[in-house]
Amino acid sequence: MPESNVAEPSDRNEGEVSGAKVIAQALKTQGVEYMFGIVGIPVTEIAFAAQELGIRYIGMRNEQAACYAASAIGYLTGRPGVCLVVSGPGLIHALGGMANANMNCWYTECCMSPPVSMAETPAVCMAASVIRNAKQPLLIIGKGAAYAHAEKNIRKLVEQCKLPFLPTPMGKGVVPDNHPNCVGAARSRALQFADVIVLLGARLNWILHFGLPPRYRPDVKFIQVDICAEELGNNVRPAVTLLGDINAVTKQLLEEFDKIPWQYPPESKWWKTLREKMDSNEAASKELASQKSPPMNYYTVFYHVQEQLPRDGFIVSEGANTMDIGRTVLQNYLPRHRLDAGTFGTMGVGLGFAIAAAVLAKDRSPGQRVICVEGDSAFGFSGMEVETICRYNLPIIILVVNNNGIYQGFDTDTWNEMLKSQDATIAAPPACLLPNSHYEQVMIAFGGKGYFVQTPEELQKSLRQSLADTTKPSLINIMIEPQATRKAQDFHWLTRSKM
Amino acid sequence: MPESNVAEPSDRNEGEVSGAKVIAQALKTQGVEYMFGIVGIPVTEIAFAAQELGIRYIGMRNEQAACYAASAIGYLTGRPGVCLVVSGPGLIHALGGMANANMNCWYTECCMSPPVSMAETPAVCMAASVIRNAKQPLLIIGKGAAYAHAEKNIRKLVEQCKLPFLPTPMGKGVVPDNHPNCVGAARSRALQFADVIVLLGARLNWILHFGLPPRYRPDVKFIQVDICAEELGNNVRPAVTLLGDINAVTKQLLEEFDKIPWQYPPESKWWKTLREKMDSNEAASKELASQKSPPMNYYTVFYHVQEQLPRDGFIVSEGANTMDIGRTVLQNYLPRHRLDAGTFGTMGVGLGFAIAAAVLAKDRSPGQRVICVEGDSAFGFSGMEVETICRYNLPIIILVVNNNGIYQGFDTDTWNEMLKSQDATIAAPPACLLPNSHYEQVMIAFGGKGYFVQTPEELQKSLRQSLADTTKPSLINIMIEPQATRKAQDFHWLTRSKM
Amino acid sequence: MPESNVAEPSDRNEGEVSGAKVIAQALKTQGVEYMFGIVGIPVTEIAFAAQELGIRYIGMRNEQAACYAASAIGYLTGRPGVCLVVSGPGLIHALGGMANANMNCWYTECCMSPPVSMAETPAVCMAASVIRNAKQPLLIIGKGAAYAHAEKNIRKLVEQCKLPFLPTPMGKGVVPDNHPNCVGAARSRALQFADVIVLLGARLNWILHFGLPPRYRPDVKFIQVDICAEELGNNVRPAVTLLGDINAVTKQLLEEFDKIPWQYPPESKWWKTLREKMDSNEAASKELASQKSPPMNYYTVFYHVQEQLPRDGFIVSEGANTMDIGRTVLQNYLPRHRLDAGTFGTMGVGLGFAIAAAVLAKDRSPGQRVICVEGDSAFGFSGMEVETICRYNLPIIILVVNNNGIYQGFDTDTWNEMLKSQDATIAAPPACLLPNSHYEQVMIAFGGKGYFVQTPEELQKSLRQSLADTTKPSLINIMIEPQATRKAQDFHWLTRSKM
Amino acid sequence: MPESNVAEPSDRNEGEVSGAKVIAQALKTQGVEYMFGIVGIPVTEIAFAAQELGIRYIGMRNEQAACYAASAIGYLTGRPGVCLVVSGPGLIHALGGMANANMNCWYTECCMSPPVSMAETPAVCMAASVIRNAKQPLLIIGKGAAYAHAEKNIRKLVEQCKLPFLPTPMGKGVVPDNHPNCVGAARSRALQFADVIVLLGARLNWILHFGLPPRYRPDVKFIQVDICAEELGNNVRPAVTLLGDINAVTKQLLEEFDKIPWQYPPESKWWKTLREKMDSNEAASKELASQKSPPMNYYTVFYHVQEQLPRDGFIVSEGANTMDIGRTVLQNYLPRHRLDAGTFGTMGVGLGFAIAAAVLAKDRSPGQRVICVEGDSAFGFSGMEVETICRYNLPIIILVVNNNGIYQGFDTDTWNEMLKSQDATIAAPPACLLPNSHYEQVMIAFGGKGYFVQTPEELQKSLRQSLADTTKPSLINIMIEPQATRKAQDFHWLTRSKM
Repeated sequence: MPESNVAEPSDRNEGEVSGAKVIAQALKTQGVEYMFGIVGIPVTEIAFAAQELGIRYIGMRNEQAACYAASAIGYLTGRPGVCLVVSGPGLIHALGGMANANMNCWYTECCMSPPVSMAETPAVCMAASVIRNAKQPLLIIGKGAAYAHAEKNIRKLVEQCKLPFLPTPMGKGVVPDNHPNCVGAARSRALQFADVIVLLGARLNWILHFGLPPRYRPDVKFIQVDICAEELGNNVRPAVTLLGDINAVTKQLLEEFDKIPWQYPPESKWWKTLREKMDSNEAASKELASQKSPPMNYYTVFYHVQEQLPRDGFIVSEGANTMDIGRTVLQNYLPRHRLDAGTFGTMGVGLGFAIAAAVLAKDRSPGQRVICVEGDSAFGFSGMEVETICRYNLPIIILVVNNNGIYQGFDTDTWNEMLKSQDATIAAPPACLLPNSHYEQVMIAFGGKGYFVQTPEELQKSLRQSLADTTKPSLINIMIEPQATRKAQDFHWLTRSKM
Repeated sequence: MPESNVAEPSDRNEGEVSGAKVIAQALKTQGVEYMFGIVGIPVTEIAFAAQELGIRYIGMRNEQAACYAASAIGYLTGRPGVCLVVSGPGLIHALGGMANANMNCWYTECCMSPPVSMAETPAVCMAASVIRNAKQPLLIIGKGAAYAHAEKNIRKLVEQCKLPFLPTPMGKGVVPDNHPNCVGAARSRALQFADVIVLLGARLNWILHFGLPPRYRPDVKFIQVDICAEELGNNVRPAVTLLGDINAVTKQLLEEFDKIPWQYPPESKWWKTLREKMDSNEAASKELASQKSPPMNYYTVFYHVQEQLPRDGFIVSEGANTMDIGRTVLQNYLPRHRLDAGTFGTMGVGLGFAIAAAVLAKDRSPGQRVICVEGDSAFGFSGMEVETICRYNLPIIILVVNNNGIYQGFDTDTWNEMLKSQDATIAAPPACLLPNSHYEQVMIAFGGKGYFVQTPEELQKSLRQSLADTTKPSLINIMIEPQATRKAQDFHWLTRSKM
Repeated sequence: MPESNVAEPSDRNEGEVSGAKVIAQALKTQGVEYMFGIVGIPVTEIAFAAQELGIRYIGMRNEQAACYAASAIGYLTGRPGVCLVVSGPGLIHALGGMANANMNCWYTECCMSPPVSMAETPAVCMAASVIRNAKQPLLIIGKGAAYAHAEKNIRKLVEQCKLPFLPTPMGKGVVPDNHPNCVGAARSRALQFADVIVLLGARLNWILHFGLPPRYRPDVKFIQVDICAEELGNNVRPAVTLLGDINAVTKQLLEEFDKIPWQYPPESKWWKTLREKMDSNEAASKELASQKSPPMNYYTVFYHVQEQLPRDGFIVSEGANTMDIGRTVLQNYLPRHRLDAGTFGTMGVGLGFAIAAAVLAKDRSPGQRVICVEGDSAFGFSGMEVETICRYNLPIIILVVNNNGIYQGFDTDTWNEMLKSQDATIAAPPACLLPNSHYEQVMIAFGGKGYFVQTPEELQKSLRQSLADTTKPSLINIMIEPQATRKAQDFHWLTRSKM
Repeated sequence: MPESNVAEPSDRNEGEVSGAKVIAQALKTQGVEYMFGIVGIPVTEIAFAAQELGIRYIGMRNEQAACYAASAIGYLTGRPGVCLVVSGPGLIHALGGMANANMNCWYTECCMSPPVSMAETPAVCMAASVIRNAKQPLLIIGKGAAYAHAEKNIRKLVEQCKLPFLPTPMGKGVVPDNHPNCVGAARSRALQFADVIVLLGARLNWILHFGLPPRYRPDVKFIQVDICAEELGNNVRPAVTLLGDINAVTKQLLEEFDKIPWQYPPESKWWKTLREKMDSNEAASKELASQKSPPMNYYTVFYHVQEQLPRDGFIVSEGANTMDIGRTVLQNYLPRHRLDAGTFGTMGVGLGFAIAAAVLAKDRSPGQRVICVEGDSAFGFSGMEVETICRYNLPIIILVVNNNGIYQGFDTDTWNEMLKSQDATIAAPPACLLPNSHYEQVMIAFGGKGYFVQTPEELQKSLRQSLADTTKPSLINIMIEPQATRKAQDFHWLTRSKM
């Protein structure tokens, strides 16, 4: 049934109305609190029925974004989020969100509180023993740890055993990024030389370079802690596998270290190596960040953002360099407060995620802010959801880090020069976007605040104003050097340009 | 491979570069002239390689829109359009476009010019005989007739036999809408009382009410002309089926009517009935259109648009009432010059279609304009493609017919009143959008022209200016009565409100 | 719902009974005359209801065979055959049959007689012209010609233009195999040196070596006549494509050759080459066939079978060498009287096909026989259907050409020697079957006649008796030399052993 | 690539040969010991290569059976079994086996020994407490318990706590069927009145009536022990869920009952009720079994089989009443020694399963027998595998319990009378098979022993001879009353005839 059918179902009978109510009631019974979607024949009645039962219905502008929002609700609350779409094209548009949720292992829960499983005792003993014998240990804290609410026990493990740890993108905040044992600033070094790595709900996918040399020692011993048996032993053969709920298993490990107390020596060469690398990396970043004359680079931008970032804010992010560099500079202090493009690297998720987080914050902790850090290309995938943000009056702060392109763009002069003699349909480079696009006006169009900033001072001021206004959304369009890149990396291919 | 991988493939070897070139060369050999997409690792090189070979690469903002654009190129040129996306999420986002192309039977052609088949002679004879004996005949001209380039022969058939005809949405323009034999203004009546209906590349789907009573006589005889055998006999059992290329079969029919000349009497009661109904419908529309005081209604808007519409313009449209009413008022004079949400009723197709048509027009008939008529909800599905339009400097005119909602919305006062005591996340009706949204600023953000119009005069003026500027895109945000509906219909369920 | 559920639906209400009747009535209305399947909860009632309405229900022993039988009915009658299976495992077992039907392009017809399309006139002219200018022409008659009932017109084309022709396996009999223009005995030569090949409902799949060198001249011109546009231009780029019903298009070609009469010179060098090759090939086959001392080879067997084969018999066949060599020796004189493993090379189809043909013959031409020529491995796929044959008293003659293996086997002495020191689960070669298996006893087990034959005389006698008994099925288990192969071929890889 | 291609790959180059070896070596490395399949181009080389590496290759007669055999190896050994088929039809034929394996949760293991998880401690405490407070407790032991090798701990739990238990079909033998606490003979009663049910690796599917009234008390408390989180809470909401390895969790439960010892009172009213029901049911069965005059009924047959059944034999079974009644009479004393049609009720699995078990027994415990109990209809699905059994000399004993039909058949006189005036294709009832079919001759055809038995004495004698011959397979075709049914049941629909 197409969504724009001219025939409206006004001659529906009572039975059909009840159908919508039955669905809404079933969702309510399953603990559904939030529904995202786009109405159309014949699902409009379901939205009405849901509202009548107290379920929040948030109308979005494209099913893609609706589905991403529903996924985020599932991740943040541990309860199912629902995406309401018409059949046919609506369902197909929503597939992106469903695939993304799947890839990130957000399966929403059934109504029953999920059962918790633990690892078998001998395997826990063996894992503890492997950790005790490590010369250069490392914990990697993944999204699974966040989803399992394992923050208290993992922090205890880190502190009691004095172990260095590294969060994955969405594992950030399980232990605060500014914890002295966090070695995020020496990420590559830590991965490359660790001899024992404990994976706490983190998967050896492309983000972790599949666990393979040269990014890892060929003889590294992995201890995998995961809820999913099928995941264990993928890509590498682990030394020990601990199948179970990540919180429960961490507790089991702690019990082992209670029985025979042990801590990794804080004066070890490994800690020294890591600290030195962290110091030099941070110095390099600060050097870049300290650059005052416009155009700004990524580091300048993120250092100023970090200065004003509220400790309890949600950070949502997507993009290429924007997400990757932002992740290293922007700190998370609380678990489940970072949402990004995830395992699948999906573009278009940002605004949906931000909306979900903001709706939740409005209900549960008024005053808590959502900062959505978008590359300019990434913003284009779902930018029209700004209307949704304004309609529901969600005080989200969107930062568009704008380099006029995908990976890299051009400044206006170069662009104009390039297209002087040839039409843009012939000569525009595939990765370039229109220079000096005023994305902030998309926000202004719907009544929010918009800022176009080119200097650190403008950035600081616009951030201050945006944070001060707790009732309205803002979009800060931050112009950076179009050819800005990352700082030099140990693995050269991370920074070499491809154009 | 995720699209935002931090590792850039700068260490690619020659073999990989060649891979991209091989793909581009193969596409070129297949006659591909246009490619739409979003670059990302590892497909950026393919875009570069295609450009080097003279293929136009148009970078879009969401794979959905890219895929819709590629589909439209296939329909308009009869040659394959290509959509370039990264694997994983990019491919999934593109599914909407692929499903839509499928549903609308745009299969792009292989390089070889497709073979043409004709209907068997006895069946053609029988069809001619059924037509000759019709008391109340009707031709329905579908999208298949447009795709088959059958305009010359179908017009000859209409004029030689003096038959009334009705175009389907995308069959409009095969014979001009203002042809005296066009009975579009008496559509319901024509369908309901015809005793013989010749379907020329038109399918009995929901748009044609599946060919069933009460919208048709129970004893109506259908003559189906179609290229696809599986389509024949769906929903109804036709009196005659003519399997073959629609142009070739129409020619066969003409040969029959050359052998034994025949024409349907212009003074028949059937023609009289149809003409009377057309007159009264047109009078009712004009009455509605003549309403001068704001807020405007759909008819006022479309009558003014029609007045200024260039005869050779492409009309692209999507939305609910916007598309349905617009279709009855806006005239097509040329075949393959209307693109809309189609059989599947897919929202989000408009801007991609408009971009494809504009890129083509730029190449093939500079000066030819593209008018994109969007409902406000429809615009939200792919509104960010406005940046693409500005980047490539495509002088598309976008009309957003804005009633603040899906089907129906509210004015600002009602909206504010409604949300005075309750948060929008609780109380906003599912089908409502933000009142008075300034969609025109989305165009201004990227350097195009934007107009916010509330009166017929403002509409006339903004249209005039937009048409006069042949170098820049415009967006006219046309505010209408939020509760505006269609004029009364014979079948009451077409107009009854559902809220 | 599993098929062996202990709970029987005896507490069904009237509504459910009606459900089965509704389905049966709908099938009846669609012209279904035959249903093959295996009953189980909840489909048993459908079988009963179908029988009550006069539909024949044939209960089979495995859904695979049921589905193959239903497919064959569709091919033979042009009306849909139905396969009745339980959901779950029954449906999955039936997939083989459905895939096979698809691959062989048996889509059953809807109730309406299918419309016929013709090729466009200019393409027909061009095809005639290409044929006229051919130096070494060849017609290939495919299964599509048989399905289109094109036998009368194709024979006229062959005879009027004096063209050499070659049938594909299931195209055999459209023009009788013993027609003087049939060059089947020089197949490889004809394909390799023809300069113009007309494909009449034949596809360039693996059976026709994909139309590629070295099996064809690189400059061969193909004229493709097919009902399916997607098929045209696959693998090769044809000189002319004629899209339409094969019978109708052949008639169009004949009309061209009526307008400007033409015939290919019977004294041409091409005919001379072909005739010489046919003579030498036939001599070689006869030489092999004349070998009298056991064990027999394939040619001896098939020459004796051919001697007694009724002219109007259905030949069903599957296996490797059995099907391939049998096809060259066993003659078809009538169209649609050969059914074999087809395009897909599917094993297990034979008995299902034979049952369908025999049920049909019983109804439509009592006395007409079905000869099912099976390799011993092939027979194993569905041998239990012999019970079905006996239960329904279908006088099928099954020939199992038994070489104790797949491709090749061993005699009893070699087998015993081989397994003297090692268990069969370790040492039995993968392609070997048990030597001297008495497949005929599978027939005797259910009351049919069984013969175990080792000499030409025994073969002759058993065939005579089987043909004489028109009321009972027989199975003749024909022992041949286990290492028997084909005669030498021009393309050496056709005869080289692989063990 | 079709399996019967005339072109043999004798011109393969070294690279291709290595391909087969690489595959075989990879399988060997993964611990594969057994491969079942049907060779054909291009997989023959893989079979050879596997044999060279010491993998057993068992050539079957239909891919269906090959796949069922491979599944059974996986279940029995906990290591992957492999099914080798050609692409195309071979793969499709194998789908039945793959679907069946999936439905029965046989996912074969990766090379690494699977990690073991336990339930969380508080949930174990709660489960123990619920059990302690049960008035009418029941353990249900499922196939998952067998697969987890939990027999030792489950038996300890049964005996220590003195709990009544009920095995599911493939859970039989985890604790011996003749254990005094087994209440299998009062199955319906036990399910219907238990107030607390512990599911140990058993799922609430149709075999367990989905856990719903009237087969269960509406207030029954389920404690679910399962390895699969998705399975927990299906159909019913359990009181406690214990997620983890079934053996490990049972051990956790035992530890709870060690801490605070508890046992269910053997003199309780519940035990009394169950024992009385068991006694009366067993008396009724014995009454039926004692019937001496032919034709025999199911109970007579199974009681005589049970008398001679070796304690360590594998029992394989499929059919409707044959499997259902056989399951109640034939005793299992060892875990993983029963294989039947399973959750999916798949027909055609029997011979494949029996072959797998027999190949395994030959290797691991020579002398151990496989008894395959088949309904006559079930046997037809894969009866040709008898040749495989004979070829590999597997001393399987096949019992065909023959009632001339599916559910019910007719005797010869009734059958002949019924078909006197009408052809069988018109008048044969869908569920009937040929009366007095001599299935034993299918075994004789390939050199095994065949018996046709009609009396208890003949049955006893043939069983004795079959068991005595440890080198040869036998098939005993046991004729029973064609209208034989089950004894009367508490739930009337279990016994009401449907014909």
